[in-house]
Amino acid sequence: MTTFKIYAAGEFLKSENEIEVINPYNNEIIGKTFLGDEEILEKAIRKAESVSEEMKNLPSWKKYEILMRIANALKDNFDEFTRLLCLESAKPLKYSAGEIKRAIQTFTIAAEESKRLPKEYIDLDWTQAGDKKEGIVRYFPVGLIAGISPFNFPMNLAVHKIAPAIASGCPVVLKPSTSTPLSTLKLAQVIDKTGLPKGAVSVIPMDRKTGNRLVTDQRFKLLTFTGSPAVGWKMKRDAGKKKVVLELGGNAGVIVTESADMEPAVKKCITGGFAYSGQVCIHAQRIYVHKSVFNKFAEKFISEARKLKVGNPVEPDTDISSMIDEANAIRIQDWVDEAVADGAKILTGGKREGTYFPPTVLSETHKEMKVCSLEVFGPVVTLEPYDKFEDAVKYVNEGRFGLQAGVFTNEIDEMNFAFRNLEVGGVIINDVPTFRVDNMPYGGIKDSGLGREGVKYSILDMMEPRILVKNI
Amino acid sequence: MTTFKIYAAGEFLKSENEIEVINPYNNEIIGKTFLGDEEILEKAIRKAESVSEEMKNLPSWKKYEILMRIANALKDNFDEFTRLLCLESAKPLKYSAGEIKRAIQTFTIAAEESKRLPKEYIDLDWTQAGDKKEGIVRYFPVGLIAGISPFNFPMNLAVHKIAPAIASGCPVVLKPSTSTPLSTLKLAQVIDKTGLPKGAVSVIPMDRKTGNRLVTDQRFKLLTFTGSPAVGWKMKRDAGKKKVVLELGGNAGVIVTESADMEPAVKKCITGGFAYSGQVCIHAQRIYVHKSVFNKFAEKFISEARKLKVGNPVEPDTDISSMIDEANAIRIQDWVDEAVADGAKILTGGKREGTYFPPTVLSETHKEMKVCSLEVFGPVVTLEPYDKFEDAVKYVNEGRFGLQAGVFTNEIDEMNFAFRNLEVGGVIINDVPTFRVDNMPYGGIKDSGLGREGVKYSILDMMEPRILVKNI
Amino acid sequence: MTTFKIYAAGEFLKSENEIEVINPYNNEIIGKTFLGDEEILEKAIRKAESVSEEMKNLPSWKKYEILMRIANALKDNFDEFTRLLCLESAKPLKYSAGEIKRAIQTFTIAAEESKRLPKEYIDLDWTQAGDKKEGIVRYFPVGLIAGISPFNFPMNLAVHKIAPAIASGCPVVLKPSTSTPLSTLKLAQVIDKTGLPKGAVSVIPMDRKTGNRLVTDQRFKLLTFTGSPAVGWKMKRDAGKKKVVLELGGNAGVIVTESADMEPAVKKCITGGFAYSGQVCIHAQRIYVHKSVFNKFAEKFISEARKLKVGNPVEPDTDISSMIDEANAIRIQDWVDEAVADGAKILTGGKREGTYFPPTVLSETHKEMKVCSLEVFGPVVTLEPYDKFEDAVKYVNEGRFGLQAGVFTNEIDEMNFAFRNLEVGGVIINDVPTFRVDNMPYGGIKDSGLGREGVKYSILDMMEPRILVKNI
Amino acid sequence: MTTFKIYAAGEFLKSENEIEVINPYNNEIIGKTFLGDEEILEKAIRKAESVSEEMKNLPSWKKYEILMRIANALKDNFDEFTRLLCLESAKPLKYSAGEIKRAIQTFTIAAEESKRLPKEYIDLDWTQAGDKKEGIVRYFPVGLIAGISPFNFPMNLAVHKIAPAIASGCPVVLKPSTSTPLSTLKLAQVIDKTGLPKGAVSVIPMDRKTGNRLVTDQRFKLLTFTGSPAVGWKMKRDAGKKKVVLELGGNAGVIVTESADMEPAVKKCITGGFAYSGQVCIHAQRIYVHKSVFNKFAEKFISEARKLKVGNPVEPDTDISSMIDEANAIRIQDWVDEAVADGAKILTGGKREGTYFPPTVLSETHKEMKVCSLEVFGPVVTLEPYDKFEDAVKYVNEGRFGLQAGVFTNEIDEMNFAFRNLEVGGVIINDVPTFRVDNMPYGGIKDSGLGREGVKYSILDMMEPRILVKNI
Repeated sequence: MTTFKIYAAGEFLKSENEIEVINPYNNEIIGKTFLGDEEILEKAIRKAESVSEEMKNLPSWKKYEILMRIANALKDNFDEFTRLLCLESAKPLKYSAGEIKRAIQTFTIAAEESKRLPKEYIDLDWTQAGDKKEGIVRYFPVGLIAGISPFNFPMNLAVHKIAPAIASGCPVVLKPSTSTPLSTLKLAQVIDKTGLPKGAVSVIPMDRKTGNRLVTDQRFKLLTFTGSPAVGWKMKRDAGKKKVVLELGGNAGVIVTESADMEPAVKKCITGGFAYSGQVCIHAQRIYVHKSVFNKFAEKFISEARKLKVGNPVEPDTDISSMIDEANAIRIQDWVDEAVADGAKILTGGKREGTYFPPTVLSETHKEMKVCSLEVFGPVVTLEPYDKFEDAVKYVNEGRFGLQAGVFTNEIDEMNFAFRNLEVGGVIINDVPTFRVDNMPYGGIKDSGLGREGVKYSILDMMEPRILVKNI
Repeated sequence: MTTFKIYAAGEFLKSENEIEVINPYNNEIIGKTFLGDEEILEKAIRKAESVSEEMKNLPSWKKYEILMRIANALKDNFDEFTRLLCLESAKPLKYSAGEIKRAIQTFTIAAEESKRLPKEYIDLDWTQAGDKKEGIVRYFPVGLIAGISPFNFPMNLAVHKIAPAIASGCPVVLKPSTSTPLSTLKLAQVIDKTGLPKGAVSVIPMDRKTGNRLVTDQRFKLLTFTGSPAVGWKMKRDAGKKKVVLELGGNAGVIVTESADMEPAVKKCITGGFAYSGQVCIHAQRIYVHKSVFNKFAEKFISEARKLKVGNPVEPDTDISSMIDEANAIRIQDWVDEAVADGAKILTGGKREGTYFPPTVLSETHKEMKVCSLEVFGPVVTLEPYDKFEDAVKYVNEGRFGLQAGVFTNEIDEMNFAFRNLEVGGVIINDVPTFRVDNMPYGGIKDSGLGREGVKYSILDMMEPRILVKNI
Repeated sequence: MTTFKIYAAGEFLKSENEIEVINPYNNEIIGKTFLGDEEILEKAIRKAESVSEEMKNLPSWKKYEILMRIANALKDNFDEFTRLLCLESAKPLKYSAGEIKRAIQTFTIAAEESKRLPKEYIDLDWTQAGDKKEGIVRYFPVGLIAGISPFNFPMNLAVHKIAPAIASGCPVVLKPSTSTPLSTLKLAQVIDKTGLPKGAVSVIPMDRKTGNRLVTDQRFKLLTFTGSPAVGWKMKRDAGKKKVVLELGGNAGVIVTESADMEPAVKKCITGGFAYSGQVCIHAQRIYVHKSVFNKFAEKFISEARKLKVGNPVEPDTDISSMIDEANAIRIQDWVDEAVADGAKILTGGKREGTYFPPTVLSETHKEMKVCSLEVFGPVVTLEPYDKFEDAVKYVNEGRFGLQAGVFTNEIDEMNFAFRNLEVGGVIINDVPTFRVDNMPYGGIKDSGLGREGVKYSILDMMEPRILVKNI
Repeated sequence: MTTFKIYAAGEFLKSENEIEVINPYNNEIIGKTFLGDEEILEKAIRKAESVSEEMKNLPSWKKYEILMRIANALKDNFDEFTRLLCLESAKPLKYSAGEIKRAIQTFTIAAEESKRLPKEYIDLDWTQAGDKKEGIVRYFPVGLIAGISPFNFPMNLAVHKIAPAIASGCPVVLKPSTSTPLSTLKLAQVIDKTGLPKGAVSVIPMDRKTGNRLVTDQRFKLLTFTGSPAVGWKMKRDAGKKKVVLELGGNAGVIVTESADMEPAVKKCITGGFAYSGQVCIHAQRIYVHKSVFNKFAEKFISEARKLKVGNPVEPDTDISSMIDEANAIRIQDWVDEAVADGAKILTGGKREGTYFPPTVLSETHKEMKVCSLEVFGPVVTLEPYDKFEDAVKYVNEGRFGLQAGVFTNEIDEMNFAFRNLEVGGVIINDVPTFRVDNMPYGGIKDSGLGREGVKYSILDMMEPRILVKNI
């Protein structure tokens, strides 16, 4: 069992507050680390500020080299990273491996984008007032960045803050989830060896009170938070003058139409609904199926859900394992019970066993039930028939959230209608809302967030344009 | 009856070679003009060269003002331009009006694009060799431009050369078709009053021999030709060091699938097939209809074709009128007869009356027939059933041309397959290949041409990038 | 004297709270209008929401038409708009005319940009996870917009909120300054006649309490505020989930180097320093001149400042007139007196006469004085020598603000250094920080604001990206 | 001594026509290879055509992987590639190493650009004719590419054809110089192992007659030629319907102004003038120095030129070695002698020794001399004083060529004037025209060429846009 030190101000540090990280599957302690205190955070902030100028002046070849060095180190230590991530999060091994692959890709994209930072060159002589003048717009790093990342993708969601920060030339202080800090701290060890200016990246697990300094301290110029809506929107209020990016959750909907190819639709919905026990922002929570194919879909879907292999996350063929903690399993049980009490039918699943919650399918739900209106963040899916496509779109739009939506269809009209009318950040045709690759703009509207990630988009947020108006 | 002078070197000139322009519908002389001789052309070239520097230095607000002034003058004299165009070309009034509207739009787009000329701003420090260096790329006018435009859109196809030339700061010498030079010469009168440097635009009708100087003279830096493939490809060979843009013809195909909405498909195919007697580069020449709906489509299509109102082009409700000259009507008769002799069936039309050729639909054709393999440039359409969508795509791809194609479908798969596999410059979903708006990239591949028009794209051809490498 | 009604929900309305608008120069009442109450505002919001869908669906040709119609109406009524603006603001006629010209240009740009809304088309197959997938990103209007504009450019700063809102398809409720609401309300009369959906634009003068609903009401999705830093930053805190754009003030600096061309530098600094009595966000407040040319510059500058013609704003040759109100004149007197008490020397001016404050030049100031550290928003300029260019850049960077800066130089090294190191939104070479044209990105960093205006940039803020992930 | 086989149609082949490759420095045979005959070429073309579809369909992650694999193999075998290149070309080792580094960078850029192929997404509803329509523009590979590369950068100039071809999905047949084919053939061995479809890249040394098929065969859709102007322009004539890109030579000029930093200017001019004996398209051939600093510059320049270390190219500290062959050395001697006979003065050098020609500086030349007006392609530099900056720009512009130019200055006015008025593809501030990095647009105007290289720009030439017009 390893102890991972905090990485702050370019140093690996201990604090007085040691914490244990446990494997949610079996409650074994798999590692230790420390909570950073005010002093350590202050040190990290000061060091970060002191390297701002150096970061701003890194040539692109140097940033490329650093970022690719990290990507390559992740490749070289792929199995270790995968296993560590798997253990701290109970994310089944195959999904853990997928996440490390994505982290590698995120760093690679950032390496490439560091050579393609936003830039504009514009004419200003559109009126006589600008005669013989032109403008070139360079984007400069915004300054010190505060990043807060959640437990469910402990690696790649942290990387979506760290990698663009390096690419844009901003120092960053990252607070990982205290449940799953180890893979990020291991990443810090890799970063430390790359020639990046010391202190440009700090990774500090913190309690909520200390971590709140990331929100309120005015030396941070941007707060980028991935987590729950309630917490996120409060942060926006308290953030002072800094920019705020919020990547929050949702209750993503899927529409399966008559023209859909049924086999792949079922298969993808299974993954979208139950991968990592639904502890995914773009978990396929609500599935609406055209009434003419509803029974067929439901039957296959339930049959497939039942086939999922439950077990130890480190087994290569495990499909579903424990939730992150018992509290969450209990909460889901409550929501399911409440739905059932209110008329919902359980088609499969529905009873937790300790921290494990089985793949659960509900039907005959209605929009006020928590399993519909809130972010379930568990392996629970509602399945309902619809009549007209416009209705299905309306159902998906119900509620406060708007992250992504999936539409299985072969009709151009439906694709167009969905794109135009689904109130979300992403409409995924013939796939689940859970689809995400790391170069696409990703983020929600309505209560699901503010701003977009996807390396290029994060970089844009992390930089400020400055125009040089000059003669020609 | 008006006499229109040549517009060369900023002056309105006569030459010794007066020509008459006739209305193809009734052979009445509707106006006179002159053929420019070598001397006039030489004068125009020299003057154009002498204003190159002034043109290059026009601020964008000035170019915008000039181009919008032209657009507004066309609006203010809309009816006169429409009528003149109608008379010289026998293009039915409603289509003539449509063309003047498009010319207005083309100038408007050029006005706007003159403020958005291509520009790049790039980092050069991707390796140490470029440390502390960056590049800004401005595009400079390529120099003197030679434009040659055809009879079928005498106004807007000339405008697609003149407007981007002004926007990019290049002087241009334009040779209009000697059949239909009047609307372009009337445009010259408008241009003359705008404050554009005199000599920046010349419009000179010429015989082929004199006109060939536009191809061979090395002072021209770009030749932009719209016309027939045979002539165009020879020009490319003879053009010396200049750049060459060729907008040639085709034998455009249409696919009507099972999922197509039949009413609009028929209606649009009628327009695509018979508007201006098919004397259109993107005339819908070959229609392939899924066998399950073939009879239904054919019946409606023929019925609609027969309803087209034949008559004097100046009547507002005339749909179809004379061809540009009898030679062309005769040529088409020959091709139709040849096809019939080879097994084709005439579903409607097929017999010319003087310069008039009626809407004609053939079936049971095969790909070697001229009506299939060559550009028919007349009101002749072939109608054939197909079995599989892949076959239809293959049929459309047959032959030397590749301009645009239309696909009527509501299936995403077919749209994707068509886009990926149709060897053309443009795939038009749920419309005929005849669809064109003036800001879209337009042009063919295979024997149909080289390069793209659509104002922004023409401007790109008319300019040369120059990078400034500087320290940061 | 005219009474201008409120323009709310597509209607011209009165309220019970009539207010008088006076000419600050002579305190004459020049017009009347009304303060909107909660009820009127609520009506405007509801109507705006009800036309959201219609606004979202306006084709670009329609938006272009509407916006150009407004621009043309401003041209057609140029003198009336100029005079009204002049009277309500005491802005000298030539500057008032300049502002109306800019408003015309802002609408024209918006018209053009409405056809060029942001759009992306990206490959998603960067990893196997995205095989055969691509993304198209369309930007949809964010929804209802709240705009708050200040007294100093009552027309063009309102237009910078209204025009991009129309271009992006968002309804907008605008609160103009209650000191200068008339030109904006006259603009509303123009807008009303254009075919824009009724209720898409409302212009409602309001007291601060009612106006605060623009900040707090959650139906607004974006707040765009131009005004003072203190008010702006508080709004950010209270804005809830909506996006916030702040265009605040500054204490802009100018550097005049040895290599500067002296004549134009002096002339431009006079305009930058005293136009509209310095009531301009990018007023050239602090001028740093290289010591070797300091005396020469100071002499000429003072001499020119004294030549400025004081008088009635409606006289065509008036250079400087009254301030917006006496309170501001008094405030400036206090700041100047305080500076003098603290050691500053008055080189010219310095004594107010009623609402008039004369062109004033101070020297021997230091950075803690209010005339240096705060936004003076009056005709007061500090003039100080510097030794090394790096020092001058440091001086300009001092303090909380960072809007724009001017640098008069002919040296590439200095231009590069300034661009890289001046902490501002815009570095203007060989011109004053006061330079702005309406298509350039404009806005501040540090305490000077959040986000950028300049039509294209505002549009970007007013829209949300939505990606369509589809097969290829 | 190794024998390198031809790489055609995915196979390593011999022909009957074996050739020897010699080291120009000592005439030792360093390797053997074969001239491809008509049959081998035909085989390569057919195979290339047969993999066109597969190439077109490669996902971007696959192209990235292939291209990075090549880049990494070059890194892994860096010394061998460097040495082979050095031996076949007599390019001094340090410059050979630089070229291999650039080839690695060119492949890396191509890998990244393969994920960023040109793409457009545009609105088409700018008029009512396009209501509810939009366009997405994908770029498809143009088809089979013919590449011809020269002896002077045998590796990187071949790579500038091969790498973008792979990135854009086009098969390519490359003819390397028969003097220096070995490094390219060694590259072929690397390419063969990457998983690229067999036959997508062929590298075939050919005699001129066989090689001419690359120009005339209509199955090639693009000819990209780097070489001499006379040959290139003739190719344009004979190329039929294919697109043609020409990267030809020049007689690049440099301007050294009064404000230039003298030390670096001299140092860079030495490299620009004599690196690889001036056998570089952007060799700094003509240096114009402001008269006030002419003597100082001339003295230092000559002194530095004399310090260059002559010798065996494989020695790490060799600065200059033999020319590619004696014929070239003789030609240069003739040109120098002719210039001297016509009044030029030799400031240093001027006498060849076998294939070696020493660093030579001439003065008192005039523009008709071959050493001024033609591409000298040898270690000969002319050095002349100028009076006014405008004159210097005029001198640089004299003659038929326009590739790149260098300007050493610290004055903004001169930079602007140079950028606006130098008739070249690239203006390099404070560096020699010899500056090139592989992502910048590179190419000439006037007789220096047609089109641009620099990976992204080559890719654009290698692809054809196709618009999909669809409903929204």
